[in-house]
Amino acid sequence: MFSKILVANRGEVALRIMRAARELGVKTVAVYSTADKDTLPVAYADEAVCIGPAPAGKSYLVMSNIIAAAVTTGCEAVHPGYGFLAENADFARACADNGLVFIGPAPECIERMGNKAAARETMTACGVPTVPGSDGVVERVEDARAFADEVGYPVLIKASAGGGGKGMREVHDPADLESAYTAAKAEAAAAFGNDDVYLEKLVLRPRHIEIQVLADDFGNHVALCERDCSIQRRHQKLLEEAPSPALDDELRAAMGEAAVKAVEAVDYRNAGTIEFLLDESGKFYFMEMNTRVQVEHPVTEQITGTDIIKEQLRIASGEPMSCADRAPFSPNGHAIEFRINAEDPANGFRPCPGTITRFDVPGGPGIRVESYVSAGSVISPFYDSMVAKLIVWGQDRDEALARGRRALDEFKIEGIATTIPFHKRVLDAEIFQRGEARTDFLEVAFGEE
Amino acid sequence: MFSKILVANRGEVALRIMRAARELGVKTVAVYSTADKDTLPVAYADEAVCIGPAPAGKSYLVMSNIIAAAVTTGCEAVHPGYGFLAENADFARACADNGLVFIGPAPECIERMGNKAAARETMTACGVPTVPGSDGVVERVEDARAFADEVGYPVLIKASAGGGGKGMREVHDPADLESAYTAAKAEAAAAFGNDDVYLEKLVLRPRHIEIQVLADDFGNHVALCERDCSIQRRHQKLLEEAPSPALDDELRAAMGEAAVKAVEAVDYRNAGTIEFLLDESGKFYFMEMNTRVQVEHPVTEQITGTDIIKEQLRIASGEPMSCADRAPFSPNGHAIEFRINAEDPANGFRPCPGTITRFDVPGGPGIRVESYVSAGSVISPFYDSMVAKLIVWGQDRDEALARGRRALDEFKIEGIATTIPFHKRVLDAEIFQRGEARTDFLEVAFGEE
Repeated sequence: MFSKILVANRGEVALRIMRAARELGVKTVAVYSTADKDTLPVAYADEAVCIGPAPAGKSYLVMSNIIAAAVTTGCEAVHPGYGFLAENADFARACADNGLVFIGPAPECIERMGNKAAARETMTACGVPTVPGSDGVVERVEDARAFADEVGYPVLIKASAGGGGKGMREVHDPADLESAYTAAKAEAAAAFGNDDVYLEKLVLRPRHIEIQVLADDFGNHVALCERDCSIQRRHQKLLEEAPSPALDDELRAAMGEAAVKAVEAVDYRNAGTIEFLLDESGKFYFMEMNTRVQVEHPVTEQITGTDIIKEQLRIASGEPMSCADRAPFSPNGHAIEFRINAEDPANGFRPCPGTITRFDVPGGPGIRVESYVSAGSVISPFYDSMVAKLIVWGQDRDEALARGRRALDEFKIEGIATTIPFHKRVLDAEIFQRGEARTDFLEVAFGEE
Repeated sequence: MFSKILVANRGEVALRIMRAARELGVKTVAVYSTADKDTLPVAYADEAVCIGPAPAGKSYLVMSNIIAAAVTTGCEAVHPGYGFLAENADFARACADNGLVFIGPAPECIERMGNKAAARETMTACGVPTVPGSDGVVERVEDARAFADEVGYPVLIKASAGGGGKGMREVHDPADLESAYTAAKAEAAAAFGNDDVYLEKLVLRPRHIEIQVLADDFGNHVALCERDCSIQRRHQKLLEEAPSPALDDELRAAMGEAAVKAVEAVDYRNAGTIEFLLDESGKFYFMEMNTRVQVEHPVTEQITGTDIIKEQLRIASGEPMSCADRAPFSPNGHAIEFRINAEDPANGFRPCPGTITRFDVPGGPGIRVESYVSAGSVISPFYDSMVAKLIVWGQDRDEALARGRRALDEFKIEGIATTIPFHKRVLDAEIFQRGEARTDFLEVAFGEE
């Protein structure tokens, strides 16, 4: 095991990593921007190095400063957390070039899975289902029709040069295909000066299901069950749970096997997450792989009894993971994570930086809080607005829901607006209580975009 | 399930019960002494009734006031917590006489197990081992020798009228029996005016092992594994863990079966604990039964995924327990509870009531805090000195130990002295780390009485 590591991050994930390191007897070095000088992770670490001012582009994203901090403090490894440089292959290479272990996968894996086309090819090659798509640009409407007939309606016509929904058309009825194809091409030409389009099967009302994987140098590849992250707002996850109310043992096993196949195909090491779309018929499609720890990793820890950060440290230091002999994993109970952000849900989730005047966390059984603030802490406008994660565990989903409600009622944060009221609305929504939320939950339940 | 219950207690256990009730949708009524007016349980409950001043004899022990509070607020049941009236059969009867369900066993069970001789008889009759003892007073040294030969040395000679160690002699060698017998009788005569003595097998360097049981109206009797409570000071538990490092699956099953036998023998209902002494050879002996929930119940909850307070409410309301189908239980991971008392371990554990000026609880994975205080709370001199319980869980004992150390380091309580430094010393003690602590731990490890 390492004797000292640098944590190249801030906020709750920095503290989460430091706590895991401390339990393993590993010393930690914090890096911080001048804006974060007085935050808890800086005080908690054994050493701390200032790497520049806010915003992140002048500190947390400056590789040379971070590498220099690690080298001068005698660190053997760097944990990137999530965000910032966590999926930057150049940073992983820079670590290696300076004799530092990057606590994550090899740079080649980061690159391969970071490129959507390459990732999709890799998955297809190893038999993991991806959303069916046309083989590149579709030149003629007849080819579009042939593709749609093959995969079935609805389909999505997308501009090759596209983004932001421009040149995109959903087609639900074969009669609409030709006009939609023509309109998409015209819109693409106008928007991008390029009228190339391609087609994909449209996955209707999907759930976002992701599989947590771990892989070590000893040939162990395990899937730590799934997380259901369907409660999103504009593709930002707000609440996650494990297991998913939509999976039975058979589907769990199938998705776990697909995830492990993906890991084996790219000779992956360390922790990673394979994200899938799950459609209403129970078919799942590879979406992308995150080659790092996720914000929502605690729900997996709660139902599997693992410590994913510790496993990352073990794997990166050349030890075997400690949980391989417990695979295949079955969920033990049910966990829900509520992301408590400094945002005002009554006001379009507008960020609300400021000073926290009261911060009383809930207690009692089945409660876990991941945070880095206390009364008096200042939430900076420079970084993401997450203040805390509340994770609740129950013997079953009903107990987790009741405990979540109880804990949200107990959680007292004053001085800033937070997303706590939003989470209470989610718990009150029947569609969520029934376990039927999909990625369109906010629209379906609340009529919100 | 009940719609409203009264919680006849104070402090952390009152809040623990209220949280469980809230998760079950049950309203709660707090009772409080004037000294406890500003405490969290009073604020947390749906209603609160003052039942008199401190000390407890004028409020928490006044049955008529508590019954009146329950009746006038329309409660259907009373949860006694631990201590105060929790093992008072008259109180259980008074509840029933006033149409209130007492959340615990029948008064007859409380009485039968509360009487040590009757409890011992009951256990012997159903084949649960008790510490072997002479059949009443031993009139002649020949009879003492015959008993000692039968059960084996060492034995303990005790004055029938005794107490406080007077008229008590340990005999380790047959050659010493006669002189010890004579001396014990003489000392007993001098101390109590009565020289009657009896003999017991002396359990040397025992561990204190207790089995948590649950029994409902549907014939379900389950043992929820064991707790090891060997770390004591003057018979006060300070730290408890589950499972015990001394038990293997076979011994766990045997002790669990003995506990369930005891429960069946007295037709017990609700939660209870059978306390055993475990000797160095692996033999165990019934010591006593606690007919209520224990302070240390959370370690059992952590390794079994149960909520014992909720099970108490289910059972008392006439529902089946929810966990019967998961029996027999095997420990999942390892849990340790640290009792954080307002006592100064550097000063003979002198109670230190006062005002808490800072109360920052640890966070992160595997941490549970049961408390009822926050910064600004006043610890009253009128009640027991427990401020909080810190419970840590780990995948195995090593992880629980490391996590306990990490969490104790993070726990910041200022304004009063606490037992946190003592717990750090325990974690540092090799004998504890090796899992070899017995009830003489403080003497063996620290040279303290």
